[in-house]
Amino acid sequence: MGRIVCFGEIMLRLNPEGYLRIPQADCFMASYAGGEANVSVSLANYGEDAAFVTYVPDNPLGQSAINSLRRYGVDTRWMMKGGERLGVYFIEKGASQRASKVVYDRKYSSVAMSGPGDYDWDRIFEGADWFHWTGITPALSDSLADATLAALKKAKEKGITVSCDLNYRKNLWSREKAKEVMSRLVPYVDVLIANEEDAADVFGISAEGTDIESGKLSSEGYASVARQLVEAFGCRYVAITLRGSISANDNNWSAMIYDGKDSHVARNYLIHIVDRVGGGDSFGGGLIYALHNGYNAADAVEFATAASCLKQTIEYDFNMVSVKEVEALVHGSGSGRVQR
Amino acid sequence: MGRIVCFGEIMLRLNPEGYLRIPQADCFMASYAGGEANVSVSLANYGEDAAFVTYVPDNPLGQSAINSLRRYGVDTRWMMKGGERLGVYFIEKGASQRASKVVYDRKYSSVAMSGPGDYDWDRIFEGADWFHWTGITPALSDSLADATLAALKKAKEKGITVSCDLNYRKNLWSREKAKEVMSRLVPYVDVLIANEEDAADVFGISAEGTDIESGKLSSEGYASVARQLVEAFGCRYVAITLRGSISANDNNWSAMIYDGKDSHVARNYLIHIVDRVGGGDSFGGGLIYALHNGYNAADAVEFATAASCLKQTIEYDFNMVSVKEVEALVHGSGSGRVQR
Amino acid sequence: MGRIVCFGEIMLRLNPEGYLRIPQADCFMASYAGGEANVSVSLANYGEDAAFVTYVPDNPLGQSAINSLRRYGVDTRWMMKGGERLGVYFIEKGASQRASKVVYDRKYSSVAMSGPGDYDWDRIFEGADWFHWTGITPALSDSLADATLAALKKAKEKGITVSCDLNYRKNLWSREKAKEVMSRLVPYVDVLIANEEDAADVFGISAEGTDIESGKLSSEGYASVARQLVEAFGCRYVAITLRGSISANDNNWSAMIYDGKDSHVARNYLIHIVDRVGGGDSFGGGLIYALHNGYNAADAVEFATAASCLKQTIEYDFNMVSVKEVEALVHGSGSGRVQR
Amino acid sequence: MGRIVCFGEIMLRLNPEGYLRIPQADCFMASYAGGEANVSVSLANYGEDAAFVTYVPDNPLGQSAINSLRRYGVDTRWMMKGGERLGVYFIEKGASQRASKVVYDRKYSSVAMSGPGDYDWDRIFEGADWFHWTGITPALSDSLADATLAALKKAKEKGITVSCDLNYRKNLWSREKAKEVMSRLVPYVDVLIANEEDAADVFGISAEGTDIESGKLSSEGYASVARQLVEAFGCRYVAITLRGSISANDNNWSAMIYDGKDSHVARNYLIHIVDRVGGGDSFGGGLIYALHNGYNAADAVEFATAASCLKQTIEYDFNMVSVKEVEALVHGSGSGRVQR
Amino acid sequence: MGRIVCFGEIMLRLNPEGYLRIPQADCFMASYAGGEANVSVSLANYGEDAAFVTYVPDNPLGQSAINSLRRYGVDTRWMMKGGERLGVYFIEKGASQRASKVVYDRKYSSVAMSGPGDYDWDRIFEGADWFHWTGITPALSDSLADATLAALKKAKEKGITVSCDLNYRKNLWSREKAKEVMSRLVPYVDVLIANEEDAADVFGISAEGTDIESGKLSSEGYASVARQLVEAFGCRYVAITLRGSISANDNNWSAMIYDGKDSHVARNYLIHIVDRVGGGDSFGGGLIYALHNGYNAADAVEFATAASCLKQTIEYDFNMVSVKEVEALVHGSGSGRVQR
Amino acid sequence: MGRIVCFGEIMLRLNPEGYLRIPQADCFMASYAGGEANVSVSLANYGEDAAFVTYVPDNPLGQSAINSLRRYGVDTRWMMKGGERLGVYFIEKGASQRASKVVYDRKYSSVAMSGPGDYDWDRIFEGADWFHWTGITPALSDSLADATLAALKKAKEKGITVSCDLNYRKNLWSREKAKEVMSRLVPYVDVLIANEEDAADVFGISAEGTDIESGKLSSEGYASVARQLVEAFGCRYVAITLRGSISANDNNWSAMIYDGKDSHVARNYLIHIVDRVGGGDSFGGGLIYALHNGYNAADAVEFATAASCLKQTIEYDFNMVSVKEVEALVHGSGSGRVQR
Repeated sequence: MGRIVCFGEIMLRLNPEGYLRIPQADCFMASYAGGEANVSVSLANYGEDAAFVTYVPDNPLGQSAINSLRRYGVDTRWMMKGGERLGVYFIEKGASQRASKVVYDRKYSSVAMSGPGDYDWDRIFEGADWFHWTGITPALSDSLADATLAALKKAKEKGITVSCDLNYRKNLWSREKAKEVMSRLVPYVDVLIANEEDAADVFGISAEGTDIESGKLSSEGYASVARQLVEAFGCRYVAITLRGSISANDNNWSAMIYDGKDSHVARNYLIHIVDRVGGGDSFGGGLIYALHNGYNAADAVEFATAASCLKQTIEYDFNMVSVKEVEALVHGSGSGRVQR
Repeated sequence: MGRIVCFGEIMLRLNPEGYLRIPQADCFMASYAGGEANVSVSLANYGEDAAFVTYVPDNPLGQSAINSLRRYGVDTRWMMKGGERLGVYFIEKGASQRASKVVYDRKYSSVAMSGPGDYDWDRIFEGADWFHWTGITPALSDSLADATLAALKKAKEKGITVSCDLNYRKNLWSREKAKEVMSRLVPYVDVLIANEEDAADVFGISAEGTDIESGKLSSEGYASVARQLVEAFGCRYVAITLRGSISANDNNWSAMIYDGKDSHVARNYLIHIVDRVGGGDSFGGGLIYALHNGYNAADAVEFATAASCLKQTIEYDFNMVSVKEVEALVHGSGSGRVQR
Repeated sequence: MGRIVCFGEIMLRLNPEGYLRIPQADCFMASYAGGEANVSVSLANYGEDAAFVTYVPDNPLGQSAINSLRRYGVDTRWMMKGGERLGVYFIEKGASQRASKVVYDRKYSSVAMSGPGDYDWDRIFEGADWFHWTGITPALSDSLADATLAALKKAKEKGITVSCDLNYRKNLWSREKAKEVMSRLVPYVDVLIANEEDAADVFGISAEGTDIESGKLSSEGYASVARQLVEAFGCRYVAITLRGSISANDNNWSAMIYDGKDSHVARNYLIHIVDRVGGGDSFGGGLIYALHNGYNAADAVEFATAASCLKQTIEYDFNMVSVKEVEALVHGSGSGRVQR
Repeated sequence: MGRIVCFGEIMLRLNPEGYLRIPQADCFMASYAGGEANVSVSLANYGEDAAFVTYVPDNPLGQSAINSLRRYGVDTRWMMKGGERLGVYFIEKGASQRASKVVYDRKYSSVAMSGPGDYDWDRIFEGADWFHWTGITPALSDSLADATLAALKKAKEKGITVSCDLNYRKNLWSREKAKEVMSRLVPYVDVLIANEEDAADVFGISAEGTDIESGKLSSEGYASVARQLVEAFGCRYVAITLRGSISANDNNWSAMIYDGKDSHVARNYLIHIVDRVGGGDSFGGGLIYALHNGYNAADAVEFATAASCLKQTIEYDFNMVSVKEVEALVHGSGSGRVQR
Repeated sequence: MGRIVCFGEIMLRLNPEGYLRIPQADCFMASYAGGEANVSVSLANYGEDAAFVTYVPDNPLGQSAINSLRRYGVDTRWMMKGGERLGVYFIEKGASQRASKVVYDRKYSSVAMSGPGDYDWDRIFEGADWFHWTGITPALSDSLADATLAALKKAKEKGITVSCDLNYRKNLWSREKAKEVMSRLVPYVDVLIANEEDAADVFGISAEGTDIESGKLSSEGYASVARQLVEAFGCRYVAITLRGSISANDNNWSAMIYDGKDSHVARNYLIHIVDRVGGGDSFGGGLIYALHNGYNAADAVEFATAASCLKQTIEYDFNMVSVKEVEALVHGSGSGRVQR
Repeated sequence: MGRIVCFGEIMLRLNPEGYLRIPQADCFMASYAGGEANVSVSLANYGEDAAFVTYVPDNPLGQSAINSLRRYGVDTRWMMKGGERLGVYFIEKGASQRASKVVYDRKYSSVAMSGPGDYDWDRIFEGADWFHWTGITPALSDSLADATLAALKKAKEKGITVSCDLNYRKNLWSREKAKEVMSRLVPYVDVLIANEEDAADVFGISAEGTDIESGKLSSEGYASVARQLVEAFGCRYVAITLRGSISANDNNWSAMIYDGKDSHVARNYLIHIVDRVGGGDSFGGGLIYALHNGYNAADAVEFATAASCLKQTIEYDFNMVSVKEVEALVHGSGSGRVQR
C-alpha cells in the first residue's frame, strides 16, 4: 500500500491544566496539533506510512512541531521551514454546563503565508496513493486555497484517492467565502467527512429533525444530508459524525456513512469525556485507515466511530490508539475493565 | 450606580491536588478565599465597583490575600494591615461516596481580633449603595459582631441596601449563640440569602418535606421557610439555594426567591462538580448583581442560579465568569458545546 | 488482640498523571503497592497492629518501599533486605470506554527469589493471631510457594487464623499451575476472599447467570460459588466481591459473604471511580478488621464493602480511611456532602 | 506626588520549567511581561501610583494581561481592548556556557496596530507628573512611533518629567531606522537609561576600553558615552547599566549615572542568576522611584542597582521587592542570611 | 544502647516551589518540620532508636505530622493528640543577594498550649538514655517551659544524658526572657549546641573577632564563647556551628567543639546550598549520634559537620543521609563524583 | 555521506525532580536513555542520518523508548521488539558535596537477552559507513558480546569505520572479565574514546600525575594513556575526556585526542552543571560528527568538547544542541549572554 499524504497547518496548542480557566492559569500544557496533523498521527499509530506537508518557522517552535509528529512515526520530510510564525491555539476545557473555549491566534502563520509555488506536489506524491486535507487549509488564506487546488489537480492526475473533512471554522472565513472556495475544491474529493453543521454552514445543505443542542441524534436527517452531498459533488463516500452533547463532560457519539446507495449508522457511545478536541480528526483517521485497508463501508464507519470514541478518552489532540485497541472496542462491550 | 462594599474574612485556602487526601499531599494548591471576598470577586468580574473590607497581617501572606482580589479588579483600599495572622483553611476534595472535608485553622486571625473601633464606616461607605456581609463575620468574634452592628447602623443611616447570607458554621459558634447575635443583626437586612439548613440552624425555622441527604428538593418547603424569615425580620427578599447531593461528584442545584408576595423557583441544574466550594457565595454574587441592576425577582434568581451552577465547574472559591457567560447559560441549553 | 501478619510482594507503582497514556508521559507518579501490603496499610489505618513480611533490595528503592508502609504505621521489622530488585508495575488509568492497562515488570524481584529458608516464621508470628496472604505470593515463584506453605503450617500449629485472597493473575502462572499449587495451600485457609473470575480461573468453580462485562450482578450465582468453595476446602467464611463495570469511570460495587450456612449480600454502590486498583485489597482489609473485631458476617461484609467503595475514590493502591469514615458510609446515605 | 504613566506593550511570556529547552518542554510557565509594564510593577510595588497604557485584545489572554498588572496594584484603566492578538515571547533559560534564548512572536499585536488616534493623552495624563517609555514602543510600528511622539509633546506641554530606556532590539528594527526615529523622540527625554550597546546600536555612540563578552567593566568608557548622550539630546540624567557576563549563571552587575556634571558608579554585585530577564527594567523602575522621591543622583543609582540586582534573583520579569528590601541591600552586606 | 527522646514542636512547613516568592506562589510544597523533630529524623536515619514527644491536633494535619516521622522510622507513640492547631511556617528560599525569608504562624499550637501535667516523663523515659531539646521549646509558652523543666529534672534523676541546642528565636521571646528561663534550664545540660549569635543573644556571651555577615570565621573567638558557656553552666561539651554566608547560595560551614579542656575545629565546607534550613538541627543529630556511639570529641565534630554539610544539599528540613554517607564525606574529598 | 549505526541498550531513566533524593520522591521524571542511544540523538540533532539498533519489549514502555528516538529524528527501524523487559535506571542528582547516585535495574532486559542470531548485520549496515558501540554493550551479557563481535566483523568486511567508547561499568562486569572480552573487540576499533579511569579499569593502562578527585587535570598523563592504547590496539584516534570534579555542581571539563603522532588538548570549560549524565556520550557524538565531516583532529576534539560542555547544561541524557550552537561556543566566549 502507498503512503497517505496529509496537508494543512500544525499549531502550538496551549491549555491550562485540568479545568482551570485561562485567567487562572500559571502554566499552559504544550502540545502540537492541527486537523490534518492529527489525522497523520492516527494513521502512523495504525502502522500506516503517513506524511504531513506544511510550513513551520525556522525556530525552536517549528522544530518542536516537527518533533511532535516524528515522535509517533509520521514522515516529516515535507514539513518545510520558512515564514514567520507558528500558529497558536488556546483551549480551556469545559465542565458540565460550562463549555470548552478555544482562542485562536493563527493568523500570519508560516503555512498561511505559503502559496502554490512553495509545494512540489510531483515529488511530494511519490509513492502516495491517498491525499487528505480539510476545509481549514483553504480557509487560512487565498494562497493556500490555491495551493490546495494545485495539490488536488495533481492528485487526480496521479490517480490518488482524496479525502476531505469539511471542518467549517466560522472565525476563519464567512459562509459565503467558504461556499465559493469549497465548491471548487470538493469535486476532487472521493471520501467526504463532515458533521451536519458543516454541510449546512458551507453548502447550505441541512436535514430536518435534528436538534444539536438537545443531545438527540436523528440518523435519517444525516442520511439525507449525505445523499445531497454525493449528488452535488460526486463523492464515493460521505461520512457524517453525530455528536449529542449532554454536558461538557458527557456526550453521545456516533456516525453514519453513505456509499451512494446505502447508509450505515455506527453503534452509539455514551462517552465520559477526557478531551474532546480532535474527535472529528480521529474519526477521519479511522475512516481513512479502514477504507485504505479494504474494509466495507459498514465496518469502516464502526472502526472510525470506535477510534474516535477512544480519542475522546485521551488528553490532547492526537489519538494514541492501535488498530488492536480500536478493534477490541468494536467487538467488545466498552465496559472499560482493567487489562493486566 | 454605587459601589458594593463586602465585609468579612479572607483566608489562605490550601487544597491537595486533584482527589488526594491531606495525609497523601506533598503540596497544597494555594488560593485566597472567604465567603464575602468570594462575593466581591463575582461582582468585580461582572464589572461592578466592588470593595472588600477586612484586616490582614502585615506579612507576605496578607499581601498575597490583597493581591488575589486586586487581580480580579476588587477595590482593596480597605483591606487594612494589622493583627497577627491570616486564617487558613484546608479542603480535601471528595469523590463519589467520599465527602469533601474542610479543616479550619482560622482562630486568632487579624480580622477576628479587630473590633468596632478599627473601621471608619463613614469613609468606607463613601460612594457605596450596597453592603454585603454573611453570618460568618459576626461568628468570628464578639468584637467583630460589634463591628458588624456598627456597619449596619451606618448603612441604614445612609440608605444603603444591605444583603446577608446566613452561612451558619457550627464550628464557629453554637446555634444558641448564633440565634442571639443574628437576631440583632438580621433586622437591618434587605436581601437575605440562606439554605434550608441555615434557617433551621440559626433561627429554628424549618420546612417540611425536605430530605437533604436524599438529593430530592422540595420547593414548597423552602417557600414556607422564606415566608417565615420575611415575617420575622422584614426583609424585602429572601433567597434560598437548593442543593440535592447525589454524590460528591454529582449534585442537583437550584434556588428560589420570595419577594414578600410571590416565590420563584429557578431552573434545576444537574452539575458534574469540579469544585463546589463557593457555590453559595457565587449565588449571592449573582443575586446582588441582578438586583443591583434592576432585574425582577424571577430573572434575578435565574441569573444567580446559573452563575452559581457555573462556579461549581470552576476550581477554587472564586467565580470566574462574565455576565455574558451567565446569560448564555440562562438562555441556552447548558449542553457545554465547544466555543471556537 | 494480636498482630495481623501479611506476607507478599511490595512493588514500585508508576503511573502517568491523570488520564495520560504511557507513551505520552513525561513523568510517573511513584508509590509503593502490592496486594498484601495494601491490606496491611488498611489495617494500620484502622488502628490494628499490622506487620508486613517481605524481601526488598538493599537500595534506595527498597528503603522507600519500607518507608511507604512505616508512614502509615505498619510494623516493618520483617521487611528484610536482600536480592536484586524491587518489582515495578506501570498503570495507565482508563476512562470511559478505554480500559485501564497494567504492565508488570516484577520478575526476578527480591521476594520472588526468596525461599522457605529465608523466613523465621516462629519469630515472625510472635504475638500474632492472624495471617494474611494472597494467590499472588505463591504465583511469584516455586520457592515462594514453598515459603507460603511453611508459613501456613506454622500458623496452623500456633492456632493463628488464616485469610487468603485468591487474586488470580494470568500473567504470573497458568490456570493449571495455579490449581495445582493453590489446592495444596487453600485447605489452611479460614477466610477465603475471591471474585467470581478467581474461583473459575483457579478451581474451575463457576456460577450461572453472571455476565461480568454487562455490569449486572447475580448474587445467587455467587452464593453457589461460595458454597462450592466451602465444601472443597472447609473454610469458615467465603467472601466474594461483585464488580459491575459500566465504564472505566463508573462501576457498580458490592460483595457477599457465606458463613457455611447463610449468605449476606452487601449494599450496592454506584461508584464514580478515582482509582480502582486496590479495590479488592481494601475489601480484604475491611473484612479482616471486621472479623478480627467480632463483627458478625453480615456486618463484616457491609463494613468491607463500604471500605472498598471508599478506596476507589482515593488515588493509589492504599485505602486511606478510618473506621469512623467507613462506619459513616455504612450508616449514611453516601451522598458525599461537604464535612466542615 | 503625581502618577507615573508607562506606555508600551505587554506580552504573554512562556518559558519551559527550569533549564529545559523549548523542544523538551511539555508545558510552559505563563506570565505577562514587557519592558514598560515591568517598570510599572516595580513602581507599584514601591507604593507609587503607577499606570500602564496599552491595547490588548478582547479575549481571555488580554484580560489575563490586565489581571497580571492589577494583581500588583498597577492602575490598568488605560489598558484598552481592541486589535487582534496579544504578543507572545518564549524564553529558554540558559545555564553556564549555554545562553538564554528568546523567541519573539509579537508582530501584529493589538498595541503594534494602534496609532496616535487611539490614545487620549490629555485624559491619560490627568494627575500624572512622570511619563516612561522605552525604545521598544516606537520600534513596534510606525503608527506606534507616531503615538509616542504625540504623548511626548503632550507631556512636555504639561510639564511632565519624561524617562526613556533606549532598549534597542535588533529584531524589531534596523540601526538606521532606530536612529532616525529615536533622534526625533529622545530630545523630549529628561532621564535617559541605556546600556553601552544601546547607545552604540542606536546612535553610534560608543566608548573605548569595554569588552562586554569578557565580563570586565570599564566605568570610564561608560561615563564618556553618557556625556555624549547628554550633549546630543540635552537630558538631565543619563544612567547606564553595566553587565559583565561570566556565564549564564553568574554575572557582574553595576551601573553609573551622569548628571551633566559628575558621574557616580554604583557598587558592583556578583549575582548568581535566577532570572535575568527584566534586569534593565527593574533598574529603570528603581531609578524612577528614587528620582521621583528626591534622591540625589548617587543615591538613586545605588537604589536602582540594588533593586535590579534583587530582580535577577527572582523568577519572571517583574521585580517583586519593596523599598525596604532594596534599602536593606544598599546598606547591608548582600550576604543573603535567613530572615526569620 | 538506649532510646534517644526528643521534645519540641513539629509544624507544617510550606514553601513556594524553587525560588518563587510567597506572593508569586500558586502552590506550596508541604512538609513537616521542627528543630527537635528534625534531630529525631537524623537519628532514625542513622539507625538509632529515636522517639519524638509532642502534641498535635486531632485532625488530618496532626496525623500527617505523625506520618512524616513514622515514614523515616521515628518512634511516634508519644506524639499525642489534643489542642487546637498545628503550627505552620512559610519559607521563601533566597538566592544570591536576596535572603531567605521565614514567616511563622505557630502561636496557639497544640504543643504550645500544653503544660507539665500533659507529659508522663516516667513512662516516656522508659528505655531512654538520652534526652534532646532546644531553646525553641521553652520559648513557645510558659507552660511548655515548665514542662521542659519537669522533663529535665526527671532525666537527671534517671541518669539520662541531656543535650540542648540554644536556638534563640527573637520572634518568640525577648533576650531578657530567654536569659531568665534558659538560665534555669541549661544547668541540666550535658551537651550544649549553639552558634555564636545564640550565646550572645541568650546569655550575652560573645567573642571578639567575628563578623558574621562578612563570611569570615574566627575559630578562636568561638573557643572563648564555648569556654565561657562551660564555666557558666558546667556542661561536658559545648559545640558551636560556624556559618560564613557569602551569598544566599554559597556558604562556608564548619563547627568547633570544646570538651572542657581542648577545642577541635572541623574541616570547613564551601557549600552550594540546596536548602539550608535544618542545617543546625542536622549538626545536632550528627553530634548526638557520634557521642552516643562513643566517638571522641574531634571525630564527633567532624561527623556532625559533614552530616550538616550534606543536609544543606537536600531539600526540606530533614537530613536524609546514612552513617555511611556521612563517613564517606568525612574521609573523602567532597568532590561529588557520580556513584554508579 | 553514509548512515551512522549505533548499537546498544536504551533504558527508561527515572529521576526525582530537582535535587530530591529517591526516598523523598513522589514522582519520577521519565526519559529514555543509554550510552549509544544518546550518541544517536546527538548525531541526528546535527543532521546526520543516524540509526539505533536494539531490542525492546513489545509493550508501551518499549514503544516509548522507540518514540523517544524518533522524536529527534533517529532512524528506529532496527529497534526490534522482543524479550521481557526494558532496563530501568534511577538517577538522583547530587549537589555540592553530595554525589549523584545511580541505581541500575537493567538485568534481564530485552537487549541483554538477545544474541548474535537476532541481528541481520548485512541488512542493518546497508548504506552505513560508520558503526558505534560502547563497552556497556558486551558487558550486558555474553550473548550480546558475541553479537557485538559479529557486528564488528561484518563492519570490517564492509569497510565501515568503527568507534567505541570504553565506558567501563563496574556493576556490570569485573575488570578481569572486561579485559578479556574487550581485548577481543577493541582491535576492530578505529576511533577509541575513553576517560583515564576506563583505560585503567579495563586494560590496566594508567598515567601518572592525575588525581581525579582533586579536580586537577594532567594532560601529559592522558597523552601517555592514549599512546599506550594506540600501540596496543592499532586505533587511528584515541580521545580521552578529562573531568575535574570540584563539586557535584561545578566541574572542569576538557578532552584530548591523539592521532598516532600528535596530541591536542581542547579548551577547558568550568561548567556549572545542570545534568552531567550523558556528558561522555555527547563527547562521542560530537567527535563522530566532526571526524565523519572531515574535521582535523584538533578541530574535532574542540567540537566534541564544546558539544559535551553544552550537554552538561541540559536536563536528561540527550544533547539537545545544533552544529551551529556548538560552533558558536567553540568560537565564542562561553559567557552565556541572552540571544534575542
